[in-house]
Amino acid sequence: MTDFRFAVNVLPKPGILDPQGRAVEGSLGHLGVSGVAGVRVGRRVELTVSADAETAARATVDHLAGELLSNPLIESFTVERIG
Amino acid sequence: MTDFRFAVNVLPKPGILDPQGRAVEGSLGHLGVSGVAGVRVGRRVELTVSADAETAARATVDHLAGELLSNPLIESFTVERIG
Repeated sequence: MTDFRFAVNVLPKPGILDPQGRAVEGSLGHLGVSGVAGVRVGRRVELTVSADAETAARATVDHLAGELLSNPLIESFTVERIG
Repeated sequence: MTDFRFAVNVLPKPGILDPQGRAVEGSLGHLGVSGVAGVRVGRRVELTVSADAETAARATVDHLAGELLSNPLIESFTVERIG
Protein backbone atom coordinates (compact mmCIF):
# COMPACT_ATOMS: atom_id res chain seq x y z
CA MET A 1 0.00 0.00 0.00
CA THR A 2 1.15 3.51 -0.83
CA ASP A 3 0.02 6.78 0.74
CA PHE A 4 -1.37 9.37 -1.65
CA ARG A 5 -2.27 12.85 -0.45
CA PHE A 6 -5.02 14.81 -2.18
CA ALA A 7 -6.81 18.12 -1.84
CA VAL A 8 -10.50 18.52 -2.58
CA ASN A 9 -11.56 22.08 -3.48
CA VAL A 10 -15.27 22.70 -3.00
CA LEU A 11 -16.80 25.93 -4.34
CA PRO A 12 -20.33 27.24 -4.84
CA LYS A 13 -21.53 26.59 -8.39
CA PRO A 14 -21.72 29.59 -10.72
CA GLY A 15 -24.98 31.44 -10.14
CA ILE A 16 -25.38 30.12 -6.61
CA LEU A 17 -25.52 32.86 -3.96
CA ASP A 18 -22.26 33.13 -2.02
CA PRO A 19 -22.85 35.23 1.11
CA GLN A 20 -19.31 34.69 2.40
CA GLY A 21 -17.92 35.99 -0.88
CA ARG A 22 -20.14 39.08 -0.63
CA ALA A 23 -18.97 39.61 2.97
CA VAL A 24 -15.33 39.54 1.89
CA GLU A 25 -16.04 42.02 -0.91
CA GLY A 26 -17.86 44.25 1.57
CA SER A 27 -14.79 44.32 3.84
CA LEU A 28 -12.29 45.33 1.17
CA GLY A 29 -12.99 49.05 1.55
CA HIS A 30 -12.18 48.96 5.27
CA LEU A 31 -8.78 47.49 4.39
CA GLY A 32 -8.18 50.13 1.74
CA VAL A 33 -8.05 47.49 -0.99
CA SER A 34 -9.50 48.11 -4.44
CA GLY A 35 -9.46 46.22 -7.73
CA VAL A 36 -10.68 42.95 -6.24
CA ALA A 37 -13.77 41.24 -7.65
CA GLY A 38 -15.36 37.85 -8.20
CA VAL A 39 -14.69 36.55 -4.70
CA ARG A 40 -15.93 32.99 -4.14
CA VAL A 41 -15.52 31.29 -0.78
CA GLY A 42 -15.48 27.52 -0.48
CA ARG A 43 -13.74 24.75 1.40
CA ARG A 44 -10.47 22.90 0.97
CA VAL A 45 -10.09 19.43 2.43
CA GLU A 46 -6.72 17.68 2.44
CA LEU A 47 -6.51 13.96 3.13
CA THR A 48 -4.27 10.92 2.78
CA VAL A 49 -5.49 7.69 1.17
CA SER A 50 -3.66 4.36 1.45
CA ALA A 51 -4.18 2.31 -1.70
CA ASP A 52 -2.42 -0.02 -4.11
CA ALA A 53 -2.46 2.51 -6.94
CA GLU A 54 -3.24 6.18 -7.52
CA THR A 55 -6.32 5.27 -9.59
CA ALA A 56 -7.90 3.46 -6.64
CA ALA A 57 -6.95 6.26 -4.24
CA ARG A 58 -8.46 8.87 -6.53
CA ALA A 59 -11.70 6.86 -6.84
CA THR A 60 -11.99 6.90 -3.03
CA VAL A 61 -11.44 10.65 -2.96
CA ASP A 62 -14.02 11.25 -5.72
CA HIS A 63 -16.53 9.14 -3.80
CA LEU A 64 -15.93 11.05 -0.55
CA ALA A 65 -15.98 14.42 -2.29
CA GLY A 66 -19.37 13.74 -3.86
CA GLU A 67 -21.02 12.04 -0.88
CA LEU A 68 -19.57 13.72 2.19
CA LEU A 69 -17.48 16.80 1.41
CA SER A 70 -19.77 18.66 -0.98
CA ASN A 71 -23.43 19.26 -1.65
CA PRO A 72 -23.79 18.44 -5.37
CA LEU A 73 -26.93 20.57 -5.69
CA ILE A 74 -25.11 23.82 -5.02
CA GLU A 75 -21.38 23.04 -5.01
CA SER A 76 -18.83 21.66 -7.42
CA PHE A 77 -15.50 20.11 -6.51
CA THR A 78 -12.12 19.45 -8.03
CA VAL A 79 -9.52 16.95 -6.83
CA GLU A 80 -5.78 17.54 -6.98
CA ARG A 81 -2.91 15.29 -6.00
CA ILE A 82 -0.60 17.10 -3.58
CA GLY A 83 1.77 14.37 -2.42
CA MET B 1 -4.75 46.86 -16.08
CA THR B 2 -4.84 43.09 -16.33
CA ASP B 3 -7.07 40.67 -14.44
CA PHE B 4 -5.28 37.98 -12.46
CA ARG B 5 -7.21 35.21 -10.73
CA PHE B 6 -5.84 33.60 -7.59
CA ALA B 7 -6.85 31.00 -5.04
CA VAL B 8 -6.01 31.33 -1.36
CA ASN B 9 -5.92 28.01 0.52
CA VAL B 10 -6.31 28.41 4.28
CA LEU B 11 -5.69 25.43 6.55
CA PRO B 12 -5.31 24.92 10.30
CA LYS B 13 -1.63 24.95 11.30
CA PRO B 14 -0.07 21.60 12.22
CA GLY B 15 -0.90 20.77 15.84
CA ILE B 16 -4.00 22.98 15.89
CA LEU B 17 -7.19 21.09 16.71
CA ASP B 18 -9.33 20.54 13.61
CA PRO B 19 -12.83 19.48 14.71
CA GLN B 20 -14.18 19.45 11.13
CA GLY B 21 -11.40 17.10 10.10
CA ARG B 22 -12.22 14.80 13.02
CA ALA B 23 -15.91 14.90 12.02
CA VAL B 24 -15.06 13.82 8.48
CA GLU B 25 -12.88 10.98 9.77
CA GLY B 26 -15.72 9.91 12.07
CA SER B 27 -18.10 9.68 9.12
CA LEU B 28 -15.91 7.48 6.96
CA GLY B 29 -17.13 4.25 8.54
CA HIS B 30 -20.75 5.06 7.72
CA LEU B 31 -19.77 5.41 4.08
CA GLY B 32 -17.85 2.12 4.13
CA VAL B 33 -14.59 3.91 3.37
CA SER B 34 -11.30 2.82 4.92
CA GLY B 35 -7.67 3.78 4.42
CA VAL B 36 -8.26 7.51 4.80
CA ALA B 37 -6.31 9.52 7.38
CA GLY B 38 -4.88 12.94 8.10
CA VAL B 39 -8.01 14.86 7.14
CA ARG B 40 -7.64 18.64 7.46
CA VAL B 41 -10.51 20.97 6.64
CA GLY B 42 -9.89 24.56 5.66
CA ARG B 43 -11.15 27.22 3.29
CA ARG B 44 -10.50 28.07 -0.32
CA VAL B 45 -11.10 31.59 -1.55
CA GLU B 46 -10.90 32.45 -5.25
CA LEU B 47 -10.69 36.07 -6.36
CA THR B 48 -9.77 38.30 -9.27
CA VAL B 49 -7.38 41.23 -8.87
CA SER B 50 -6.96 44.00 -11.46
CA ALA B 51 -3.40 45.28 -11.45
CA ASP B 52 -0.61 46.44 -13.72
CA ALA B 53 1.54 43.37 -13.08
CA GLU B 54 1.29 39.99 -11.43
CA THR B 55 3.69 41.07 -8.66
CA ALA B 56 1.35 43.86 -7.58
CA ALA B 57 -1.70 41.60 -7.81
CA ARG B 58 0.00 38.95 -5.71
CA ALA B 59 0.96 41.54 -3.07
CA THR B 60 -2.72 42.50 -2.77
CA VAL B 61 -3.71 38.84 -2.38
CA ASP B 62 -1.02 38.23 0.27
CA HIS B 63 -2.23 41.29 2.19
CA LEU B 64 -5.88 40.13 2.06
CA ALA B 65 -4.99 36.56 2.95
CA GLY B 66 -3.10 37.61 6.06
CA GLU B 67 -5.48 40.34 7.25
CA LEU B 68 -8.95 39.16 6.25
CA LEU B 69 -9.05 35.58 4.97
CA SER B 70 -7.04 33.78 7.64
CA ASN B 71 -6.33 33.93 11.34
CA PRO B 72 -2.49 33.85 11.50
CA LEU B 73 -2.52 32.52 15.07
CA ILE B 74 -4.07 29.20 14.08
CA GLU B 75 -4.09 29.06 10.29
CA SER B 76 -1.58 29.16 7.47
CA PHE B 77 -2.28 30.05 3.88
CA THR B 78 -0.86 29.49 0.43
CA VAL B 79 -1.58 31.52 -2.70
CA GLU B 80 -1.79 30.06 -6.18
CA ARG B 81 -2.37 31.74 -9.52
CA ILE B 82 -5.29 30.07 -11.30
CA GLY B 83 -5.91 32.37 -14.28
